[in-house]
Amino acid sequence: MSVLRVALAQCNPVLGDIPGNGSTVLRWSRKAVEAGADLVAFPELMLTGCPVQDLGLRSAFTSASLAGLSRLAGDLEAEGLGDTPVVVGYLDPADPADPALSAGEPGSVPCSAAAVLHRGEVAARYLKAPGSDLPAVRIRGVDVVLLVGDDLHGNAEPLATAGAGLVLHLSAAPYQVGSRPARKAALARLAAAAGAPVASVNMVGGQDDVVFAGGSMVVDPGGQCLAAAGLFTDDLLVAELTLSAAGAGGGPLRRLPRSTTVPDAPAPVPEAAPLLELPDIWRALVVGTRDYARKNGFATTVVALSGGIDSALVAVIAADALGAANVAGISMPGDYSSEHSKADAAELARRVGLDFRTVPIQPIVDAMPDVLRLDGIAAENIQARARGMILMAVSNQEDRLPLNTGNKTEYSCGHNTLYGDQVGGYAPLKDVPKTLVWALARWRNDQARRRGEPEPIPDRTITKEPSPELQPGQVDSELLPAPYEVLDEILAGYVEADLSRDELVARGASPAVVDQLIEMVERGEFKRRQAPPGPRVSRRAFGPDRRMPITNQFVPHGHRATYFPHAEPATGAGAP
Amino acid sequence: MSVLRVALAQCNPVLGDIPGNGSTVLRWSRKAVEAGADLVAFPELMLTGCPVQDLGLRSAFTSASLAGLSRLAGDLEAEGLGDTPVVVGYLDPADPADPALSAGEPGSVPCSAAAVLHRGEVAARYLKAPGSDLPAVRIRGVDVVLLVGDDLHGNAEPLATAGAGLVLHLSAAPYQVGSRPARKAALARLAAAAGAPVASVNMVGGQDDVVFAGGSMVVDPGGQCLAAAGLFTDDLLVAELTLSAAGAGGGPLRRLPRSTTVPDAPAPVPEAAPLLELPDIWRALVVGTRDYARKNGFATTVVALSGGIDSALVAVIAADALGAANVAGISMPGDYSSEHSKADAAELARRVGLDFRTVPIQPIVDAMPDVLRLDGIAAENIQARARGMILMAVSNQEDRLPLNTGNKTEYSCGHNTLYGDQVGGYAPLKDVPKTLVWALARWRNDQARRRGEPEPIPDRTITKEPSPELQPGQVDSELLPAPYEVLDEILAGYVEADLSRDELVARGASPAVVDQLIEMVERGEFKRRQAPPGPRVSRRAFGPDRRMPITNQFVPHGHRATYFPHAEPATGAGAP
Repeated sequence: MSVLRVALAQCNPVLGDIPGNGSTVLRWSRKAVEAGADLVAFPELMLTGCPVQDLGLRSAFTSASLAGLSRLAGDLEAEGLGDTPVVVGYLDPADPADPALSAGEPGSVPCSAAAVLHRGEVAARYLKAPGSDLPAVRIRGVDVVLLVGDDLHGNAEPLATAGAGLVLHLSAAPYQVGSRPARKAALARLAAAAGAPVASVNMVGGQDDVVFAGGSMVVDPGGQCLAAAGLFTDDLLVAELTLSAAGAGGGPLRRLPRSTTVPDAPAPVPEAAPLLELPDIWRALVVGTRDYARKNGFATTVVALSGGIDSALVAVIAADALGAANVAGISMPGDYSSEHSKADAAELARRVGLDFRTVPIQPIVDAMPDVLRLDGIAAENIQARARGMILMAVSNQEDRLPLNTGNKTEYSCGHNTLYGDQVGGYAPLKDVPKTLVWALARWRNDQARRRGEPEPIPDRTITKEPSPELQPGQVDSELLPAPYEVLDEILAGYVEADLSRDELVARGASPAVVDQLIEMVERGEFKRRQAPPGPRVSRRAFGPDRRMPITNQFVPHGHRATYFPHAEPATGAGAP
Repeated sequence: MSVLRVALAQCNPVLGDIPGNGSTVLRWSRKAVEAGADLVAFPELMLTGCPVQDLGLRSAFTSASLAGLSRLAGDLEAEGLGDTPVVVGYLDPADPADPALSAGEPGSVPCSAAAVLHRGEVAARYLKAPGSDLPAVRIRGVDVVLLVGDDLHGNAEPLATAGAGLVLHLSAAPYQVGSRPARKAALARLAAAAGAPVASVNMVGGQDDVVFAGGSMVVDPGGQCLAAAGLFTDDLLVAELTLSAAGAGGGPLRRLPRSTTVPDAPAPVPEAAPLLELPDIWRALVVGTRDYARKNGFATTVVALSGGIDSALVAVIAADALGAANVAGISMPGDYSSEHSKADAAELARRVGLDFRTVPIQPIVDAMPDVLRLDGIAAENIQARARGMILMAVSNQEDRLPLNTGNKTEYSCGHNTLYGDQVGGYAPLKDVPKTLVWALARWRNDQARRRGEPEPIPDRTITKEPSPELQPGQVDSELLPAPYEVLDEILAGYVEADLSRDELVARGASPAVVDQLIEMVERGEFKRRQAPPGPRVSRRAFGPDRRMPITNQFVPHGHRATYFPHAEPATGAGAP
C-alpha cells in the first residue's frame, strides 16, 4: 500500500476569464502544496468556466484555453510548484492531428478535457470523448485513473480490471434538489466496481442559469464517504489516502480502454422533497445571485418591495448575497396598494437594513393618455409596467442589478406582466414554486431566531393572502384555478416530470384544474421566452432545460376550441 | 420504364395541431388524386409541425402523433382515397418493442419518421434514425426509396446499388440565404449517385424563429430540375416521371441497409450575398410575420412608427402579411423628435393605408418622479420605455400582436433599450442587418413602382441619417464605432461565421473597431436573452442558433481591463 495526500481544490471560476482562472489554480495549488499534497485536482473546465455553450465553437476560445494551459504549467514550475502533479479541467480543441491524443477523436469539435501539469509541462492530456482512452498516471507508486464529468457512468468495466489505486473524477455538476445523494451513490457504485476509492472534485459557484454546488468528496469501495468538502463554498479538501500500490508493470502513464459498451445514462435524479433540502436551496439562491452580480460587475442591486412574500424573500437573498447596505428596496405604491402592503414593505426594509425608498406610481399611471381608453387587463398592466420603468430607471441611474421577484408558479401560469413585474437582470426565485417560497421564508426566519437575530421577514408578509393589488379586493386565490398547494403539485408533475394530463388526473388532480393549468402553462411560453435567467434548483427549470415552441396548438386533452390568443393572460399582474 | 405521377404536397402545418394537420393532408390528398397522382408525398413532420423542440419528449404528444397517423389512414380510405399511397412525415415514439420497425432503434427517443398510408392502413413506417433501414416501396412497378430530412446526406452508397426507380425525400428545411442552391446541389448529388430522380417535398410557412421555404423539386441524375414548386407558398406539384421499372425480385416493400459509413455532414450553406435573394428574404419576413400572427390567434398588429427606416419596413411587412387595415401604426413623438420624423411617420401611414394614431410620450416622461434625478442614459431610456408602455397598452386593449422594429445590427450592438424599443411579440427584422434593411426598402419601393403602385416608403425615410432622437442632435454615426456598412461586414464575420478578432483584422477591418464591436456584442447578450423571436434569414440568427453565456469575461483581444458592467449600453436607445 502507498499513502497519497490528495488535494481537491473546489474553486469558483469566472466563465471566459482564462487568465484569472489560471491565477486561481496557481494560488490554490500553492495552498495545496503547503498542505503537503502529492496531487492537486481542480474541477472539470476549471480553466474556462462552464457551461461554455457556443463560446466553445470559437477557435479563438479553444486556442486561448490551450495556451492558458501551457502558460499555467510554466507558471507552476516558475513558482516552484512543478514537482507536484496538478490535474486541471479545460476545453480542448481536440485536434485529431495531435499525436499525443488517442485515435477516434471527434475532429474539430472542442471537448471537455483534463490535463496533468508536471515540471513545467503538460505531461498528459485526456479528452472526455468517445474513442479516447482513460489515462492512468502513476503518482508516488499509485496508478491514478482520470475521469471527467459523466465519464463517471458506464466506465466501471475497464476500471474493474485496471488495478487502479485511485480514480480521480473532475466534475462540474450543477445543483438541483436531490443531486447530492444521487452523485454520492454514483461515486460509490464506481468505487465498488474499480475496487479503489474515487476522489471527485466538483465546481462551485453561479453561472447564469445554474449553480455548481461543490461538495467534493472521496468515497471508498464500501460506499463510505472518507472526506467531504463544504457545499456552495470554495474549499480545499486534503485527504490522506492509503491506496493499493501499482504492480511492477506499466510506466508513468498508461492508457486504459474506455468502456466499449454504450454508457449507462446517468441515473435520473430522484424526485426529492425540496423541503428536505431547504438549507441547500437557500445557499444555491444566494450564491447564484451573488455570482451573477459579481461576475457581471455589479456591487449593488435594486428590488421592488410590494409588502408580499416574493419580494421580501428576494430582498433577503440579495442582502445575504451582497450585504444589506448594497440592496436598494423600492416601495412603489399605487391606488390599490393596501396599507398593510406599504407597512410590511417598510418593516422588511427596516429589519434587513435595506436602502429603502418610496416612489408612488400614480403620477405615471395618470399620465397615460386618455385617448388610449384603457380598461381591464390593459389598465392593470400599466401599474405593473410603471413599476418596471421605475425599477429600471434606478438600475440605470445607479448601476444596480435589477432583481426580478417572480416565482416559478407565476412563471408557469403566466401570472405576471411582461415588461412589468417580469423586468430584471436576474430572477432568484424563477425556479422556486410559491409553496417553496413560503417554506424558505419560514426557514430563514427560523435560522435568524436560532442565531439570536431578528427575523427578517414580517410575520404578516408570510401569513397574508397573496394579491397583485391591481384592482380593489383582488386576491390570487380568485385569479388562479386552485390553491397554491394544489397548483404546485400539478405543476411539478407537468413541468418537471413530463407527466401527461391523464397521469396527473390519475394521481388525483381535478381534470378541470389540470386542463386549465396546462393551457395557462402553454399560453405563457411567449412571456417566459423573454424572462431573465435565474438559478436552477428543481429537476427542470424554465430556460435552457426546457425548450418549448411558442406557437403551439397541441392540447393534450384533445378538445381544442380556438387558437390561443397570445396577448396577455387572464390576469396581467403579480407582485410587486 | 414505367410512368409515375408523383404529387408533392407543399403544405403549411400548425405546430401541435395534429387533427388540423391531418385534415390538411386529407384535403390535399384529394386534390392530388383528382390530378391523377399515383403517389402523394407530404413534408417531414407534416402531421405534427416542426421543430417540435421538447414537446417531442412528452409521451402524450408522440402518442397523439401516432394515433393521428392511424386516424388519417382510416379517413383517407373512408373518403375513397385509400388506393393511392400517401407518404407523410410524423413524429414516432420509436418503441423498440414494435416488430414493424427494424433493429437498432434509439429506444424511447422519439424521432422524425415517414409512413406510407395505403388502403386504410399504415402500410410502412420508417424512422430517421441510425440503424433503421431505408424502405423501398414498390408503386406501380417502380421501387421508391424513402429518405427523411438530412438522411439526404451520406446515403448515396446503398442507393447506388439498390436499383431505385425514384428517391422520395421528405424535408422540412428552414430558409436561410443561399439554402436553395445548396439544397438543389445536394439533391443533384444524390440523384447522380442513385442513378434515379430525387423528388423532394419541403415544408412551407413560419414557426417562431424559422420560416420553411417550400421550393419542392424533382431533380434528375444529370442535375436537371424537372419540376419545381413555388417558394414561400402552399403548392401542389404534380410531376409525371418516366422511371426505371423494378426488377423481377423483391416485393411490395424492401429494406435497404442505411449507409454504415459516417454520414457526410450536410455541406455548409455557402456565404451568399443577401442582395441576390432580396425577393426570397422579403417573402420569408412576410410569411414569418403572417404565420406567427395567424398561428397564435392574432388578426391584427400594432407597430410603433418613428419616421425611421426600421419601423417603416416593419409596417410594410405587416401590411403585406395581414393587410394594411389590420396594422395600427402609432407615432409617439417626444420632445426630441424632429418635425421630419413626425411627418415621415404620417406619410408612410398614409401611403400604406395604416390605421394611424399619434400618442405623445411627454406626459409620461414628465410624470417620472423628480426624486429619481434621472439623467444621461437613464433619462434617455425613459423615453423609449414610455413608447414601449404605450405600444403594449394598445396591444393589450385591442388584442393586437405588438411587432418589434429592431434590426440585427441593433441587436448585435445592444443599440436598443430593454423594455423600451425592444418590446414586442415578434421581431421581423431581428435577423436583418441595417444595410439589408435599406436594400429591402429600396427593393420593395421598386417593386411597387414596377406594378404601377405608389412607393410605400417615403424617400426621406430611406435617405436620412438614422438617429434615436433621445437627445438633441443625436445621430447613430456618432453613437456607433463605424458606419453601418463597415459594422455589418464585421458583424457578419463575427456572429455568422465565427471569425476571430485576428481573422477580421486580417480581412482589413480596423482593430479598434473590431475590438469595440466585439465588446458591444458580448455585452449585449443579456438583452438578447430577453428578445422576442424573429425569422431567421441569415446563416446564423440570434436565438436558438446561437447559445451564448451572459456571464462571460472572455475577451479575444486579450487585454481585459475591467469586468463588463451589464446595466445598459453606451447608448440606451434606438428606434422608435
